[in-house]
Amino acid sequence: MPTAKAYAASSATSPLASTSIPRRAPTDRDVELEILYCGVCHSDLHQVRNEWKALPTVYPCVPGHEIVGRVTQVGSAVTKYQEGDIVGVGCLVDSDHTCPSCEADLEQFCPRAAFTYNSRDKHGTAPVTYGGYSSSIVVDERFVLKVPTNLELAGVAPLLCAGITSYSPIRRWGDIKGKKVGILGLGGLGHMGVKFAHAFGAHTVVLTSSANKKEDALRLGADEVVVTRDPGEMRKHASSFDFILDTVSADHDINTYLNLLKIDGTLTLVGAPDKPMPVAAFGLIFGRKRLAGSLIGGIAETQEMLDFCGEHNITSDVEVIAIQQINEAYDRLVKSDVKYRFSIDMASLKNG
Amino acid sequence: MPTAKAYAASSATSPLASTSIPRRAPTDRDVELEILYCGVCHSDLHQVRNEWKALPTVYPCVPGHEIVGRVTQVGSAVTKYQEGDIVGVGCLVDSDHTCPSCEADLEQFCPRAAFTYNSRDKHGTAPVTYGGYSSSIVVDERFVLKVPTNLELAGVAPLLCAGITSYSPIRRWGDIKGKKVGILGLGGLGHMGVKFAHAFGAHTVVLTSSANKKEDALRLGADEVVVTRDPGEMRKHASSFDFILDTVSADHDINTYLNLLKIDGTLTLVGAPDKPMPVAAFGLIFGRKRLAGSLIGGIAETQEMLDFCGEHNITSDVEVIAIQQINEAYDRLVKSDVKYRFSIDMASLKNG
Repeated sequence: MPTAKAYAASSATSPLASTSIPRRAPTDRDVELEILYCGVCHSDLHQVRNEWKALPTVYPCVPGHEIVGRVTQVGSAVTKYQEGDIVGVGCLVDSDHTCPSCEADLEQFCPRAAFTYNSRDKHGTAPVTYGGYSSSIVVDERFVLKVPTNLELAGVAPLLCAGITSYSPIRRWGDIKGKKVGILGLGGLGHMGVKFAHAFGAHTVVLTSSANKKEDALRLGADEVVVTRDPGEMRKHASSFDFILDTVSADHDINTYLNLLKIDGTLTLVGAPDKPMPVAAFGLIFGRKRLAGSLIGGIAETQEMLDFCGEHNITSDVEVIAIQQINEAYDRLVKSDVKYRFSIDMASLKNG
Repeated sequence: MPTAKAYAASSATSPLASTSIPRRAPTDRDVELEILYCGVCHSDLHQVRNEWKALPTVYPCVPGHEIVGRVTQVGSAVTKYQEGDIVGVGCLVDSDHTCPSCEADLEQFCPRAAFTYNSRDKHGTAPVTYGGYSSSIVVDERFVLKVPTNLELAGVAPLLCAGITSYSPIRRWGDIKGKKVGILGLGGLGHMGVKFAHAFGAHTVVLTSSANKKEDALRLGADEVVVTRDPGEMRKHASSFDFILDTVSADHDINTYLNLLKIDGTLTLVGAPDKPMPVAAFGLIFGRKRLAGSLIGGIAETQEMLDFCGEHNITSDVEVIAIQQINEAYDRLVKSDVKYRFSIDMASLKNG
């Protein structure tokens, strides 16, 4: 059985550390890639620390689902890729291809979808799938994405989760050009939301509790910044937004933001607070507003997003780190101390 | 100043009692009507008892916004109606006609909309508008609806609020033919929702906590009934609904019903629980579902609904009462003891 170098957690309280994991040899439809960069998603940290009751963690846990790499080997039936191609892998590595969700290009809702880490490994190589904090990965070509050649790869990696998560709901909203779009929260997801809303021609407004994020928000493409702690500013913008992308996973009063929507406006959650959010029914009824959710995107839409990024020269703003800095990076992630995503240079794995 | 006979509450704790109220003489664009029937809406009771903190009640309070009557007089500039016409008046009697909501035929969201009762009376005839529990009313012709001639008038009255409130979100959903539509709650709004969903060709499912409502639900047009207290039935229907109309205003766990929606499904609230509803973000995100609200409908849509009712021979199931029974009817309303709406025969007002 081939193996790969990786960083794994051996328990909910262990730091990530260097190890060796099994990787299957490519089967007919598989693509093997050498991982060049892997983004660091908040989900990685939740999984590593076993913080999701619904998805208990199997250890060792190798996180990472924002993967960019170079193809090193392809199976005999692979048609889309060849050795040397620069490709991406996101949150999904398998689905059943027959259910209504798969037929609608929504593999993320397939009941038999396999996620890139901590899902059952149907090949039996390991108890669960192992993610991108490793030297290589082997993935069915149907879950491998083409990466535009003009983009900086360190900043491409986070597109595979943070990118598609914010792109999908903005894209699906409809023709957003000239509409007033709010991006609530300016972190990994939010800063991508700003770039996409701006690229689609929306009047893009960052809603943030931190007045000191203003300059950066404007640099990223925002037309305006509203400091949500300022009641006067919030009143001024009441009932004025067509769409708000809510990227905040900390507890927050959703009714305050529903109040910013105009008639028929939509607020879409992509950050998921743990606790149920109290929603005032009257706030939805008066103005017939919508509170919605969105989860990453299907494979076709993820490819569309990458192509869009190529055309508009969009990548994530990243701080590149060595894999040896991952535990420190997690500590900083908890404090939102990163602009705006860590991207691991996987060449560093060669150093142990 | 002309007067009308009416039933009014003189305080939050007084029963409704016979009185006399001022009514303006018709101005140029006004239509005066003799009221034949007035439906009894739960809102009437809330307003009479001053139960809405945001809309404090001015006394005396004459409720009633499901009005059917015969035109007795029209102003000199009125073009749409003439003496003898059978017409309806719903929740709205005025708006500014210039705001974006009015321009979009959404007068219900006009910031200067006047409701049929307890709104400022811009004519100065009385401190507030007085509703339909009275012998006559005078209304700007732009808020007067044509009533199809083939319908029983007692059952038409509730269409003006309960009817349009359930019609509008079903209609706006899109082409609902063959879709699986849930109607949560089988009261005044719910029984109209069943009739409309059925008439639009949806596979209509009544979701009710009372197994004993099954026969009646099927009679009203439901294809299926799910007893929501039965965990097995609820599991069987998980992730299967395209749309759910939630007509329940009592506290209920909304997450249970969001769980019944399929991917991209929508649950629209028309009943408004007082307390904020705890909503689990994950329930919206996994399945990218929508929780929405809807408020009556604009005047054009209300006319469309009445015309649709004429074509499909739809009216509300009513229990006709005399105005002298109104206090008893309120007591029964609180206990949901009515199938499915009280309609006051206003001829009874002549008896005192």
